[in-house]
Amino acid sequence: MSIEPTPAPHRVVIVGAGFGGLETVYRLAGAPVAVTLVDRRNHHLFQPLLYQVATAALGPSEIAWPIRYLLRGRPEVTTLLATVTGIDTNARSVTLDGGDSLPYDTLVLATGARHAYFGHDEWEPFAPGLKTLEDATTLRRRILIAFEDAERERDPERRAALLTFVIIGAGPTGVELAGTIAELAHDTLPADFRNIDTRKARVVLIEAGPRVLAGFPDELSAYAQASLQSLDVEVALGQPVTECTADGVVYGGKSLQAKTIIWAAGVRASPAAEWLGAPADRAGRLQVLSDLTVPGHPEIFAIGDTVAINGPDGMPVPGIAPAAKQQGRHVAKAIKARLRGETPGPFVYRHAGNLAQIGKRSAVIDFGRIKLRGAIAWWIWGIAHIYFLIGLRNRLAVAINWLWIYTRSQRGARLITQGRAKVSNYWP
Amino acid sequence: MSIEPTPAPHRVVIVGAGFGGLETVYRLAGAPVAVTLVDRRNHHLFQPLLYQVATAALGPSEIAWPIRYLLRGRPEVTTLLATVTGIDTNARSVTLDGGDSLPYDTLVLATGARHAYFGHDEWEPFAPGLKTLEDATTLRRRILIAFEDAERERDPERRAALLTFVIIGAGPTGVELAGTIAELAHDTLPADFRNIDTRKARVVLIEAGPRVLAGFPDELSAYAQASLQSLDVEVALGQPVTECTADGVVYGGKSLQAKTIIWAAGVRASPAAEWLGAPADRAGRLQVLSDLTVPGHPEIFAIGDTVAINGPDGMPVPGIAPAAKQQGRHVAKAIKARLRGETPGPFVYRHAGNLAQIGKRSAVIDFGRIKLRGAIAWWIWGIAHIYFLIGLRNRLAVAINWLWIYTRSQRGARLITQGRAKVSNYWP
Repeated sequence: MSIEPTPAPHRVVIVGAGFGGLETVYRLAGAPVAVTLVDRRNHHLFQPLLYQVATAALGPSEIAWPIRYLLRGRPEVTTLLATVTGIDTNARSVTLDGGDSLPYDTLVLATGARHAYFGHDEWEPFAPGLKTLEDATTLRRRILIAFEDAERERDPERRAALLTFVIIGAGPTGVELAGTIAELAHDTLPADFRNIDTRKARVVLIEAGPRVLAGFPDELSAYAQASLQSLDVEVALGQPVTECTADGVVYGGKSLQAKTIIWAAGVRASPAAEWLGAPADRAGRLQVLSDLTVPGHPEIFAIGDTVAINGPDGMPVPGIAPAAKQQGRHVAKAIKARLRGETPGPFVYRHAGNLAQIGKRSAVIDFGRIKLRGAIAWWIWGIAHIYFLIGLRNRLAVAINWLWIYTRSQRGARLITQGRAKVSNYWP
Repeated sequence: MSIEPTPAPHRVVIVGAGFGGLETVYRLAGAPVAVTLVDRRNHHLFQPLLYQVATAALGPSEIAWPIRYLLRGRPEVTTLLATVTGIDTNARSVTLDGGDSLPYDTLVLATGARHAYFGHDEWEPFAPGLKTLEDATTLRRRILIAFEDAERERDPERRAALLTFVIIGAGPTGVELAGTIAELAHDTLPADFRNIDTRKARVVLIEAGPRVLAGFPDELSAYAQASLQSLDVEVALGQPVTECTADGVVYGGKSLQAKTIIWAAGVRASPAAEWLGAPADRAGRLQVLSDLTVPGHPEIFAIGDTVAINGPDGMPVPGIAPAAKQQGRHVAKAIKARLRGETPGPFVYRHAGNLAQIGKRSAVIDFGRIKLRGAIAWWIWGIAHIYFLIGLRNRLAVAINWLWIYTRSQRGARLITQGRAKVSNYWP
């Protein structure tokens, strides 16, 4: 109940509530700012586990939280469910769907990336990618329906195509999807079907480059490949995909009939660069200065998957959650420093490590000098992910689900929802 | 590895894997039959808790299970994900989408019901009902988006309409939805919003009849009404709705601006009667004989919400899960009796009771002579529902979620997914 007049607080608008945007908000706690966080979705998504929703291991609500719930204890933060349609850098305002404009003193763009088809957007309907909860439930539906349709199919060739799962791109997402789909087919489903042997399902992981997990050291790539092959995943390396259709793929000159194709081969940044008319690299990522501001706009920061910046080793900062969070932390610090009249220093990326799960009891971790693989890596992977999940309830729910899968090979989230054309009208 | 020739087993086709159809399959265990269970969905749904998905208390995978997972231990049962398009009673076969036909010796129709608008189908887009998981996630999206839009809305009148929730029909579903939405607005959400006070949201329960929970004794209806009012639900009795639009409802001559309207006022049976060309009542329910067979077709049974039959007291058997399960049990017994050359007796309904939850620590239970209400009824309601949930994993997950809501007033499944027109294109 102070009666002293207070100056209007510095207005920070943050677009995007992914790892980077949310970390910025968290780290601005206590600063004399009024924060508005804008996202076109109402939830923060723990993207590293998204493939587990796509493969029916976890339910959507176990890896996503309402943004405003996460920030309920921060009265100075306003959360808006809105889509940004443009930025007026002269007026210093963000334009939202519906025409509202949101003025800012400092703007933070943390708008992420979406999967990209390298000039083959026509492949998207046949080879959907995995970035959002909807992508994940769509993939889950497609994967589960393929088994259902195979159970009904009498033609052996069509049945084989229904039981062939192609994953394009052998980065962490592709490897994790391939391993998990193989386990789904070989461990979880066999007892459930009468006319098909789901163990005969083919999982084919196609990669244009020479090895899986190109971001990892050679020895871990080799281990991951062997581990995938022990799960009966067919790994095709050095064979770019040249065609995707409703019937299958063409890769390395060969054609393969497959009803389920998943795209895990690349991403494209959000149009933040277009909003600003600022220079971007080929993947649409904004070029930012060393302090993460946009050239010519010290009042605009950009972080996470929507920017291109190099680490101290001269290598690009990878598009992973810890990198986005470090950048968010830097931006929050920079804003606070400026409000104290100081000049913030450059962002320095510290790479903690890379990790990827391949299957039950199999993962690879690259901590730089320490490299781990196999069961020990898998346990560390699991504990780290449960630790980083926000909120006790979800940690418990995820732990229970994983325990269930681990001990029983069963999956709790095998739901086909949102219909499909074929079954959308139950009653004629 | 027997080498004796076995006779072709009696083929039982069951359409619908709700409470009735699934119970029939369970109770046919050990009988010399080959069962095919057809459902257009891959999951069995625990419908009594569907309103909790619609109100963000539970996630879809906590109240639904893949049908073939439930029957994985029954090799003589084949599960098909398929839509029935017709029945050829002469050829004794069921026609599926895609044209396949499925021959039967005995057919069991357990195809349920859908909400109905009594000749006002044009109301459906404005007042969706609640029968499927998609219905529930659609309602969840609408309810949560209403609060989101209110947070952004500056016009007081439009904001009030966004914060007005109308439920039409005060049966158990309507009462449970009204109580839970009131709790969502008054307990769960207040700390999350900055521009609106969600405690001022209006929840209006409209009923054409003279009291809420018409299927319960007067005293429990009165308690339920008082309990709803203590949750700030406005209860409007004896006032039929005469209009539903995108802007609100007209009831009892009054018009009320409301952006969220939910239909809980009535159901219509599946078209099983149309498939058979058999007589049905006004709600489309098949008239069956006392042994649950269709007149003129002793080889066709029909059970659950798709049939109209009276109990021993002359009153209609209610459309509740225990009734459908009792009928499924009867049909399984009848099929087994016939295979032994016996003539099965009539179905006799035993009414165990009715129960409905109103809010936290408030429920009503009518066991006939014993009537319970308040906290004790609520605990029995909760324990009974957890007990009837299939599968330990779900029981645990639901118990954890409820504990969380009970102790923290927080809800884990507050996700808006599958987009809305307004935000479907993040990047222009």
